[in-house]
Amino acid sequence: MASDPEAVEAANRAFYQALEARDLHRMEEIWAVEDDVSCIHPGWHRLDGRDEVSRAWRAIFANSRPWRASCESVRIFVAEGLALVVCVEKLETIGGEGEPARMQATNVFRKAGGEWKMLHHHSTPMPDVAGEDEEEPVN
Amino acid sequence: MASDPEAVEAANRAFYQALEARDLHRMEEIWAVEDDVSCIHPGWHRLDGRDEVSRAWRAIFANSRPWRASCESVRIFVAEGLALVVCVEKLETIGGEGEPARMQATNVFRKAGGEWKMLHHHSTPMPDVAGEDEEEPVN
Repeated sequence: MASDPEAVEAANRAFYQALEARDLHRMEEIWAVEDDVSCIHPGWHRLDGRDEVSRAWRAIFANSRPWRASCESVRIFVAEGLALVVCVEKLETIGGEGEPARMQATNVFRKAGGEWKMLHHHSTPMPDVAGEDEEEPVN
Repeated sequence: MASDPEAVEAANRAFYQALEARDLHRMEEIWAVEDDVSCIHPGWHRLDGRDEVSRAWRAIFANSRPWRASCESVRIFVAEGLALVVCVEKLETIGGEGEPARMQATNVFRKAGGEWKMLHHHSTPMPDVAGEDEEEPVN
């Protein structure tokens, strides 16, 4: 049986695999079944509850072109029942031009029935060039 | 003694009080002392470790005008040793014009030595109008 950090890492990887596959069913399997889930996509207001979260994934998968999705710079923090994953998402349109898009992500998983399920996802674009636009931020 | 959810709520509130006070010392007190902290300000790359995080707060406090900071729509999830707070930040420049700025925030706290300390902060602007620019997001 996988240790908790391994299981969290696998759950996080499965999230990006479902994203790459643009498979709504797989994506829904990854999220906690309770209705207290929430999701913040870049430039969106926060989505609360399974219905809102699923509806958004459906729209994203319907509107996106095939892409490769992966994550880098993964940092995992595991406690009893709750885990934080901080990582950089890499999204590359297949056959597209230019550099892959990179997003900063915060993923939180909750353990229920022995399984780690996504409770919260927050993703935002990275600045194109490190250091750019970083002089006068507002928190 | 406060329960864990109460203590997490207090720690989260203290974060916004330190932000409003633009008090670097208080802000540093709120963060975990370990060097595995991370922070994502709107439009910034991820800051890793206490030095980077503190340096950014110093710059933010030096460059910002007096403001009121608070949070709304607070949702708290507490487990043994790790807690997630999802909330909306409200920032209002004192004497400024216009509506307060609102940010989506994901805050994660870790319990150490009986105290809840900030491990990770991720904040991004809310869309001005709910529903705007939400047709074709990229995760």
